[in-house]
Amino acid sequence: MYDYLETPAVAVELDAIENNIQTLVENAAKYGIVHRPHIKTHRSVELARLQLQLGAKGITCAKLGEAEIMADAGIRDIFICYPLIGKDKLERLGKLLERADVSTLVNSVEGAKGLSDLGDSLGQRILVRIDLDGGLKRGGLQPGRPALEFARKIKDLPGIRIVGLMYYGGLIYHEPDRTAMEKIARKEREDLMATADLLRKDGFEIDVLSGGTSFSGKMPELLEGITEIRSGHYIFNDCGQLFSGFASEEDCALRVVATVVSLVDNHHAILDVGTKILTSDLCERHPGYGSIIGRPDMVITSLNEEHAFLESASPLNVKIGDKLAIIPNHACVVCNQVDWVWGIRNGRLERKIRIDARGRSV
Amino acid sequence: MYDYLETPAVAVELDAIENNIQTLVENAAKYGIVHRPHIKTHRSVELARLQLQLGAKGITCAKLGEAEIMADAGIRDIFICYPLIGKDKLERLGKLLERADVSTLVNSVEGAKGLSDLGDSLGQRILVRIDLDGGLKRGGLQPGRPALEFARKIKDLPGIRIVGLMYYGGLIYHEPDRTAMEKIARKEREDLMATADLLRKDGFEIDVLSGGTSFSGKMPELLEGITEIRSGHYIFNDCGQLFSGFASEEDCALRVVATVVSLVDNHHAILDVGTKILTSDLCERHPGYGSIIGRPDMVITSLNEEHAFLESASPLNVKIGDKLAIIPNHACVVCNQVDWVWGIRNGRLERKIRIDARGRSV
Repeated sequence: MYDYLETPAVAVELDAIENNIQTLVENAAKYGIVHRPHIKTHRSVELARLQLQLGAKGITCAKLGEAEIMADAGIRDIFICYPLIGKDKLERLGKLLERADVSTLVNSVEGAKGLSDLGDSLGQRILVRIDLDGGLKRGGLQPGRPALEFARKIKDLPGIRIVGLMYYGGLIYHEPDRTAMEKIARKEREDLMATADLLRKDGFEIDVLSGGTSFSGKMPELLEGITEIRSGHYIFNDCGQLFSGFASEEDCALRVVATVVSLVDNHHAILDVGTKILTSDLCERHPGYGSIIGRPDMVITSLNEEHAFLESASPLNVKIGDKLAIIPNHACVVCNQVDWVWGIRNGRLERKIRIDARGRSV
Repeated sequence: MYDYLETPAVAVELDAIENNIQTLVENAAKYGIVHRPHIKTHRSVELARLQLQLGAKGITCAKLGEAEIMADAGIRDIFICYPLIGKDKLERLGKLLERADVSTLVNSVEGAKGLSDLGDSLGQRILVRIDLDGGLKRGGLQPGRPALEFARKIKDLPGIRIVGLMYYGGLIYHEPDRTAMEKIARKEREDLMATADLLRKDGFEIDVLSGGTSFSGKMPELLEGITEIRSGHYIFNDCGQLFSGFASEEDCALRVVATVVSLVDNHHAILDVGTKILTSDLCERHPGYGSIIGRPDMVITSLNEEHAFLESASPLNVKIGDKLAIIPNHACVVCNQVDWVWGIRNGRLERKIRIDARGRSV
């Protein structure tokens, strides 16, 4: 498997990503919801374009650096899902607005004033969504009255226009089972709908209700009434999706291929991959540092920077030079470690895919 | 502090790294030990050259990809501290040998045969060191008789020459206190010396006894008799060194600068840095994800990809837009996230330093 790749390598199954993209867009559309995928997962122009071709409505970026790369490639409709704070960031946003249709979020009066000053100086209103706290306490306003009071505080700022609400229900990743996850997805919908009602009654025009993690985005039937989901790592899936029943092994498009470089004993070996590719991210639903395809008896018990410590319950039955494919715990951080991934179809290398915005966290 | 850097930024205090480099080389020299620094920590040509200028004897690389970048920059004396397995790797090593003096390690007969075949085809002997297990079970031979038996198995291979032993005593990073660490350092010396004696009595010429983690490398008085240390992250230091008493805050040359982008309540705020810079690496000696300079009351309790969750025991006393500097848990993985770091001296930006071999884990 993947014997033609020099290791460590990050491989992407192209049929799987195309299927993942189409399935999400089509299922969301049944409930009147558009998909604005979060490209922080892949940071690749080619994959963002593929998402747009297959039905996505614009893209979501975490950071200005990502948005700049996407705009340079001609992608126009960009939501920057991050508080843009400080002179440097505002200057860059100003330049970015010359070549793309950018909206962003606000969760503080200071942040809103900065954006308004920029909009004012440009003679335009910057489109903003109010950031609602989905329970993570990551800076968003509490849904309901606190969000309304915040909206009132910033509504007269001349250089911004409030166009919607945005919500990140990240707690869903930590729920133990599907029933508990469904509860979080319902809360996501309710928080967005109730807050929008409150603001509309107060005279605000709230067009966009944006939600959708990579879990709740797969349950659009529970989100009906919101307008947009931003699911990101659904394009690849990973151990988090696999071991919660939201993806099959075939749906897990991103695989890290590694070589057995040392044998320790009948149950232990060393692979040539470590934290500099897989990272130290854990998965609450699976032990160790990734899942070995075809070898459920194996666990990667720990990582050094360039070593994976492999332990097998059954006899190891591998030899030095053998290659193994790993579904990583967290796809989004793996992709960010490399300059390109290998696009694979039907067991063959089809093309290299550049990770154009790798490292663009500024 | 670092107000002139757009965040998140990785800053390096130049006075501190120069001092760190000189101190290690000079202290090792007192005991007749040379320093061959592991450049996986920084992956930077400029910093490798600085280490060589300030007394290092050659460099150590983890991966061929790093070694290729260093050789391209004219660095000749390179030890690749990793088993090179497979046709692709051997072909690349063959090319690398045309422009650099490369040695590597062996810990399997398969690996030794591959290297020997390459050496044979090139009409030369590739210099190898036998990899001894320092307790991590990472593929090395057990010191003493097992290492001798392995040496006998490979001694007639025509394309390699055994020139020494190499040892990685990584267990030292997990020891609770200095006394326990000293015990590991003494074992490192004893294992190397005893195994060398055994091999020499059997007719092997063992010139190189290579050891030295970034902890044991700071206790060269316990290593007298070995010939070389490979300490790597001593150049920057990090929370691991700081909270075990092996470095002061000033000695911690690498700092991640971040901006407060959201306030949650009187004791919680969000910084614009996450796992895509700091990574999820933990420190056994300090809670959370790094140490905030000047604010020992603060803990980074968790990270998302682009968010740090800051909690303070005292009232927060920061405002949106403020910048904080973080000593990371693990310097080696942070440096690998960025294309350059900012070289700082006396509170001023002096120059950008390229991380030329960032991502070169293949």
